[in-house]
Amino acid sequence: MTDSTTNMRLKLPITCFILEIILIILFGVLVQYDHETDAREWHKQNHSDYENDFYYRYPSFQDVHVMIFIGFGFLMTFLQRYGFSSVGFNFLIAAFALQWATLMQGFFHGMHGGKIHIGVESMINADFCTGSVLISFGAVLGKTSPVQLLIMAMFEVTLFAVNEFILLSLLGTKDAGGSMTIHTFGAYFGLMVTRILYRPNLDKSKHRNSSVYHSDLFAMIGTIYLWMFWPSFNSAITAHGDDQHRTALNTYYSLAACTLSTYGMSALTAHDGKLDMVHIQNAALAGGVAAGTAGEMMLTPFGSMIVGFLAGIISVLGYKYLSPILEEKLKIQDTCGVHNLHGMPGILGAIVGAVTATVATTDVYGNGMEDVFPMIAGGKTASFQGGIQGISLAVTLGIALLGGLIVGFILKLPIFGQPPDTICFEDSIYWEVPGEEASHEDQMTAVRTEETEKLNS
Amino acid sequence: MTDSTTNMRLKLPITCFILEIILIILFGVLVQYDHETDAREWHKQNHSDYENDFYYRYPSFQDVHVMIFIGFGFLMTFLQRYGFSSVGFNFLIAAFALQWATLMQGFFHGMHGGKIHIGVESMINADFCTGSVLISFGAVLGKTSPVQLLIMAMFEVTLFAVNEFILLSLLGTKDAGGSMTIHTFGAYFGLMVTRILYRPNLDKSKHRNSSVYHSDLFAMIGTIYLWMFWPSFNSAITAHGDDQHRTALNTYYSLAACTLSTYGMSALTAHDGKLDMVHIQNAALAGGVAAGTAGEMMLTPFGSMIVGFLAGIISVLGYKYLSPILEEKLKIQDTCGVHNLHGMPGILGAIVGAVTATVATTDVYGNGMEDVFPMIAGGKTASFQGGIQGISLAVTLGIALLGGLIVGFILKLPIFGQPPDTICFEDSIYWEVPGEEASHEDQMTAVRTEETEKLNS
Amino acid sequence: MTDSTTNMRLKLPITCFILEIILIILFGVLVQYDHETDAREWHKQNHSDYENDFYYRYPSFQDVHVMIFIGFGFLMTFLQRYGFSSVGFNFLIAAFALQWATLMQGFFHGMHGGKIHIGVESMINADFCTGSVLISFGAVLGKTSPVQLLIMAMFEVTLFAVNEFILLSLLGTKDAGGSMTIHTFGAYFGLMVTRILYRPNLDKSKHRNSSVYHSDLFAMIGTIYLWMFWPSFNSAITAHGDDQHRTALNTYYSLAACTLSTYGMSALTAHDGKLDMVHIQNAALAGGVAAGTAGEMMLTPFGSMIVGFLAGIISVLGYKYLSPILEEKLKIQDTCGVHNLHGMPGILGAIVGAVTATVATTDVYGNGMEDVFPMIAGGKTASFQGGIQGISLAVTLGIALLGGLIVGFILKLPIFGQPPDTICFEDSIYWEVPGEEASHEDQMTAVRTEETEKLNS
Repeated sequence: MTDSTTNMRLKLPITCFILEIILIILFGVLVQYDHETDAREWHKQNHSDYENDFYYRYPSFQDVHVMIFIGFGFLMTFLQRYGFSSVGFNFLIAAFALQWATLMQGFFHGMHGGKIHIGVESMINADFCTGSVLISFGAVLGKTSPVQLLIMAMFEVTLFAVNEFILLSLLGTKDAGGSMTIHTFGAYFGLMVTRILYRPNLDKSKHRNSSVYHSDLFAMIGTIYLWMFWPSFNSAITAHGDDQHRTALNTYYSLAACTLSTYGMSALTAHDGKLDMVHIQNAALAGGVAAGTAGEMMLTPFGSMIVGFLAGIISVLGYKYLSPILEEKLKIQDTCGVHNLHGMPGILGAIVGAVTATVATTDVYGNGMEDVFPMIAGGKTASFQGGIQGISLAVTLGIALLGGLIVGFILKLPIFGQPPDTICFEDSIYWEVPGEEASHEDQMTAVRTEETEKLNS
Repeated sequence: MTDSTTNMRLKLPITCFILEIILIILFGVLVQYDHETDAREWHKQNHSDYENDFYYRYPSFQDVHVMIFIGFGFLMTFLQRYGFSSVGFNFLIAAFALQWATLMQGFFHGMHGGKIHIGVESMINADFCTGSVLISFGAVLGKTSPVQLLIMAMFEVTLFAVNEFILLSLLGTKDAGGSMTIHTFGAYFGLMVTRILYRPNLDKSKHRNSSVYHSDLFAMIGTIYLWMFWPSFNSAITAHGDDQHRTALNTYYSLAACTLSTYGMSALTAHDGKLDMVHIQNAALAGGVAAGTAGEMMLTPFGSMIVGFLAGIISVLGYKYLSPILEEKLKIQDTCGVHNLHGMPGILGAIVGAVTATVATTDVYGNGMEDVFPMIAGGKTASFQGGIQGISLAVTLGIALLGGLIVGFILKLPIFGQPPDTICFEDSIYWEVPGEEASHEDQMTAVRTEETEKLNS
Repeated sequence: MTDSTTNMRLKLPITCFILEIILIILFGVLVQYDHETDAREWHKQNHSDYENDFYYRYPSFQDVHVMIFIGFGFLMTFLQRYGFSSVGFNFLIAAFALQWATLMQGFFHGMHGGKIHIGVESMINADFCTGSVLISFGAVLGKTSPVQLLIMAMFEVTLFAVNEFILLSLLGTKDAGGSMTIHTFGAYFGLMVTRILYRPNLDKSKHRNSSVYHSDLFAMIGTIYLWMFWPSFNSAITAHGDDQHRTALNTYYSLAACTLSTYGMSALTAHDGKLDMVHIQNAALAGGVAAGTAGEMMLTPFGSMIVGFLAGIISVLGYKYLSPILEEKLKIQDTCGVHNLHGMPGILGAIVGAVTATVATTDVYGNGMEDVFPMIAGGKTASFQGGIQGISLAVTLGIALLGGLIVGFILKLPIFGQPPDTICFEDSIYWEVPGEEASHEDQMTAVRTEETEKLNS
């Protein structure tokens, strides 16, 4: 493979322009304001402006938006020479994915009279779908070109929408915070893609596949924002009232408990008791993932904390012991360890959701049953709902793995400009990178110039 | 010019204290809580506490606030040795400008019985006006003392309020997100100021007028926050209900489309296809600027995406080809390229707004016309509104350029402590800067000390 | 003291697991959803889902949450080699403290039929209590092990809840933003702890007790977030309606005025007029602390600005002149200078609150008196309320100092793994720290490898 293949001079502009022009045309043909966003429609009805859903969803939307662009973007800046790409490609593929997701999700569950209706709820859903793509990005981080990532996003968004449609619309699954639809799907899709894109000589880039002091601090910006806003994420599209309130509360306690078990496990598994930034940056978030399905249910703070506590333990153990095995035995090179942060905790969250659904009773939910479990309120048994939850996990895993397999082979086509094994995890392949060293010399010169100035003045 | 002129020992305290004491006195004489903020007034009326406008504006206000202090502040940290000043002077002049803007805007359109009434809406407006000053700051970044910046802010806020009054109150212009009042005004005012302050020997500081790896990452924090919260910015003071909702939606899609065209153009215009951080940090935001006027109108997502797409292209082309010409031919040294991010996209936004107004029909807006175009709802034609929008752009450009001319000459007075041409873009002129190099040696010493300790223990 | 005492291999996991398991058990026994969070309870009543308090408190909660985790966490990253610990220990003890605070505060003022009821308001209160612990953390920063910090948090949260109960429930004190309960308490508690933990040989670590260029920029992230969201902090649990609105407004202007006096004083007190990052990072926030008690009262913007102006001056003078004296004469080693940011401004805020309460009249407050001063509305005189406020300050100081004394001695027990005097302010004691230097060499190797690749291709 020659260096020139990674040149993006034509590949990236062509991809960006074609994709965006297709998006614009499809939006022109298919997309309309919904009745809360359209001037005429909104004013046809008799209601206060304060009842517009904007006021009850938009603050949650903005928190989710921060998680997508700052949270995921900076979380991945931990690599020493890949900060531009981590934040920058995250930015690019998220900006594409949220547009494409609007169309795909709208096509499956937002059509009204042949048109896709959009508003703040579709914006949140589009950001959610984008989150799934960014999880997969974490698995292939440092080893893919921006064109590959855009292609991956295009297919993954489509498959995400299919899986989401099957779960939420056909099966009646509950998964407000996306333990299955977002985390499990994104993780196993990405893991399969990175398996197919296996690089036997990746160890030639291994000196760059690690952090430096400042890059770990930048990554903590991402971690903390994800951690803080996860209660908003899980509650963003639940039913209004007690449901949103309860989901935020459950997630808050799940994350707090997860943080303590993460710190404990990180020190315990280190040979000299020193905390490992990889664990803190990632495993402390597993409590949010694991509360994604059951968070809106009557899980109780007690239950949430147990879930978070277990998620932190599983996640640290995954980073410490499972990831090296996956890489050696299964040839899965998972840069960010998404299996430990999104994969296993996502499955845990799905199971917790199935169990919590199975034990739901009218005694506990009262008239609130309708909002949380409309199928149970409509006459189905709680066990049926629990069964549906379990089947949904299997469906999600199936579509993710099969989709990742196919998309992985598409991305293998030698036309998308992927970097050679020797120059992975390196910004300078795709970015103009300013010279850090040279500028230090300049600074010294500057200081000397100043001193001379001062002497002369 | 001797070095001692840049000494801020007395200049800065005198300026800060005099300005703040004047502000406090004027606030004491002129400013009152409005009827939503005042304990007695609010409780005189018969309404629920939940109807207080606080709940329908404050989340937007906080997003705008983040854009002003984190967004603008960190966006300008891209310079290698000017991070303290970028964030720190941004902080100082914004804290001053928002107070002064409260008075100036209140004087022009917030007086009730001789008193200026304030609440969350005036806070948003004050932050908006501050944004305009920070845009101008971008044009002169690295070449001005904090005293100059405070003086500039004082005059600019005043002229901003005059222009805003002419547009919004006298002419009946629509400009909720400020394509004209904020971006066009701030950009051309700043460009004229930097033209007047032209430094023929600025190339002596050119080694410092560039980024390093970490400074570009800090700048991305600013970029991403501006990008994420721009929907809140454009919708912060539109009418409640569908208007705020629609504005946020339009801006969201405009920015997403802009991001794709920015990445495409950045790779296309580079000789080796490598992305340029300057473009990503700035041009990807042009879609928000360009949706500032028409965002609240029935622009449709389709229209918004076209606008954003064009804004990104124009902005990258500006950075690549126009800025060097402006500097060489017109002697405009525009450090942050505000012409490309705020100037041209602001004009584009004004034109889009004029066109969108011109085609407004009752068929499309229904009873929502009153909120968006009260003049059309009151009997004027849509073309008339369109004409007003066009005139407003001309008025804004006129006041900005003339104002910048006068203020530029005031700032040229050799008493405000501006840095010499040889030491521009340098924090150590105005800040105690810790020694990076020395501390590395300290660290090595520390490590050796530790090792010795361990051996001895 | 041997190095091995700082090994966290067993100490930290044992502490984390025991604490978390106790928390989970107590939550299981004692904690319930409140009637706004519980599915059955919420749906028993006849109200709109939009009336759920979630929508009127949660945006404020999220702003407070950002202050606790990003604000406090990054503010303390100013030290050159203590960024991991600053953000990371902040994260750990905050995650613990918010759970423990839920129990302690619930025990004192949230019990309903033997159960602690929780919802968004208890989440805000738990975050507030956590803030107090983080203030104390600032005093001992760099000199304590994570186990010591968790032990400190456990005791401090308990005493915080006792003091809060005495003030708010027994005495009827008003202190919505916590000038007394949070800032004064946290500061003097922490100062006493650091006094007891006095290290005579701390100067052996003094080369690490300072900032570097990038660490000061990271710290500014913390500063600016604290500054921006302080209006949300002070207003988060005030009464709905005009009260929240007014508190946010007062705090906004107090902070703006404080920023100008901080910059002025910083330049004035430097021998060469150069701004000091320590002042900007900290003193500019004193206006928020000082508006913590009176912010919800009819302080007027004029009054708020005077308070903020004075707070900035006092705080800079404290950093410049008082802190060195406290260290030399009283042996108080206050790493972050919490006495200047939280201690003195907290007392100022308490006094301003007492004075503002004393001059409260029905003429000014109207029917809003009930919300702000229920005791005055109930027949007590304003002077009585003022007296209560004054007594509350004394009580707070007493409990903080006595509590700090006792807890300080507990933390002195030589079993918690505190670092030796020679290796304070150093991440590598408790963290796996990546080698910055080595990686630079790697990078050069990488570049050379790349160049070779290019030549060969």
